[in-house]
Amino acid sequence: MKHYLNLDAIPDLQSAIDEVIDLKNNPYAAEDLGRQKTLGMLFFNPSLRTRLSTQKAAQHLGLKTMIMNFSNEAWALEFEDGTKMNGLRSEHIKEAAAVVSQYCDIVAIRAFASLSNKEKDEEEQVLKCFARYTSIPVINMESATAHPLQALADAVTIKEQLFTKRPKIVLTWAPHPRALPHAVGNSFTKMVQKLDAEFVITQPKGYELNPKITKN
Amino acid sequence: MKHYLNLDAIPDLQSAIDEVIDLKNNPYAAEDLGRQKTLGMLFFNPSLRTRLSTQKAAQHLGLKTMIMNFSNEAWALEFEDGTKMNGLRSEHIKEAAAVVSQYCDIVAIRAFASLSNKEKDEEEQVLKCFARYTSIPVINMESATAHPLQALADAVTIKEQLFTKRPKIVLTWAPHPRALPHAVGNSFTKMVQKLDAEFVITQPKGYELNPKITKN
Amino acid sequence: MKHYLNLDAIPDLQSAIDEVIDLKNNPYAAEDLGRQKTLGMLFFNPSLRTRLSTQKAAQHLGLKTMIMNFSNEAWALEFEDGTKMNGLRSEHIKEAAAVVSQYCDIVAIRAFASLSNKEKDEEEQVLKCFARYTSIPVINMESATAHPLQALADAVTIKEQLFTKRPKIVLTWAPHPRALPHAVGNSFTKMVQKLDAEFVITQPKGYELNPKITKN
Repeated sequence: MKHYLNLDAIPDLQSAIDEVIDLKNNPYAAEDLGRQKTLGMLFFNPSLRTRLSTQKAAQHLGLKTMIMNFSNEAWALEFEDGTKMNGLRSEHIKEAAAVVSQYCDIVAIRAFASLSNKEKDEEEQVLKCFARYTSIPVINMESATAHPLQALADAVTIKEQLFTKRPKIVLTWAPHPRALPHAVGNSFTKMVQKLDAEFVITQPKGYELNPKITKN
Repeated sequence: MKHYLNLDAIPDLQSAIDEVIDLKNNPYAAEDLGRQKTLGMLFFNPSLRTRLSTQKAAQHLGLKTMIMNFSNEAWALEFEDGTKMNGLRSEHIKEAAAVVSQYCDIVAIRAFASLSNKEKDEEEQVLKCFARYTSIPVINMESATAHPLQALADAVTIKEQLFTKRPKIVLTWAPHPRALPHAVGNSFTKMVQKLDAEFVITQPKGYELNPKITKN
Repeated sequence: MKHYLNLDAIPDLQSAIDEVIDLKNNPYAAEDLGRQKTLGMLFFNPSLRTRLSTQKAAQHLGLKTMIMNFSNEAWALEFEDGTKMNGLRSEHIKEAAAVVSQYCDIVAIRAFASLSNKEKDEEEQVLKCFARYTSIPVINMESATAHPLQALADAVTIKEQLFTKRPKIVLTWAPHPRALPHAVGNSFTKMVQKLDAEFVITQPKGYELNPKITKN
């Protein structure tokens, strides 16, 4: 089974971009695709554009949606194996993933970085645990280190705005008083690396992206 | 474009009342009207009857709904212009309104008075900002100073219960230990002023409605 | 009108089990049943499997759903009669139940035990108040003392796994550091009592089920 955890899951970015543009021009063309199918949308963090756009995309595809905010609507989940569950975490991910798999046909998940433990964040525990224990495809709606839905949308925008065969694309950002995650920058970088483009990252000192991703 | 921020947006109250009564008698008569259209429902405050009735009305009209509770599901919004956004408000209304406009065809908003700053409340910042920055019609699901959906429903009830040509309508209320807003009273007053009725407001001293609305 | 507050509402468990198995094999067989009807789902407590399975069941039956989390989306409800409502509880159950009845055709409710006052819990105030003041059928999605939806699902599992005419069924559980409710155990017990089975409860000392239910 194929998950969409990051951009690597798309073997041919160009044809994916073309497919998105086709659907954008004719949004209800595949309305029968999702008939009697259900997309679960699980939020461990706030969301506005990803939430609305994913829900709208489901409507276009004729999919029903079931939305859950894990912070306040469901049981707190335990993600570690072999722990004594005697505290506030009432439900183990193994159980929860099985439940979600039973009632949904696809599940989309948003689970941000904690920004307090870089190593833990890079393990992508929430997303990876769901991918491991679920029996349905998992879509990443922004995780600790990746936001592949936004990167695909960015690729479409670049294609639509393209006025030169080989564009120069500059990725930059300003530091912010609060710690902010690299998920968007990471996935944007991965995406541009698949395009025929000149790519420059000008990053503030101390806020560098992971060199394993930038390949610098 | 036309918003429904308060009763002034209805040019002919009598024919609006008649249209509501027609739909009430035949609720699915306009089920095709909303096909492939989406109503966004944004809540900055709790709601029971307005939430359920608006959602049900959308079902009657064949509209899909996307519901968001801004208190805990979305980013905290910044409504002021020119502020340095270095605190907890992660998203500016200009951005948020554009996002909502892209995925919804109509947006309904509930945003109460703070009841701590009368002048600010009368500016109706949340509702007005959405109306300014959105590109789709905005419906007021109760704001700081108006609740025009309820006033329209009240007008229908009065029409349905009418047993005399020119009724006498008395609006009154008791003080409450907690501060309560005037939105319902304001819109009820505006609505009755458009009817052929004798209208009396008996208000507790110190809890008077805004004389600009009562015109006394 | 018939509520589904506990298993006693099912006059013939065997034929209910058979009906569930039929629907399980052909989940959209009754898709027209719920056309233009709405199931309200009211949560006073967290839920994962009951929430998703009930929402999915509604989709199978062609029912629309309107979901409300009472903890943060609606007004705090007052359930007592004759109280002075001058505190934080803004809405009386009599009003709320009437509102829900107007916009929904069925209402499903989850309201757990407080686990701090056994007598109060056994009164099932939330569920009983809704059943008393509503004009539509009420479904129990787990209350203080019963979880009849899960018990029915358990009965189906037992029937599906049955390899002997008269099975021996053992109900047991371990104590947990936090207080946990008896709702699932109660309804499971009631359900097995209706089967042709040998039934044994091995319960930890001090955590006994209510003898009125176990009939021991």
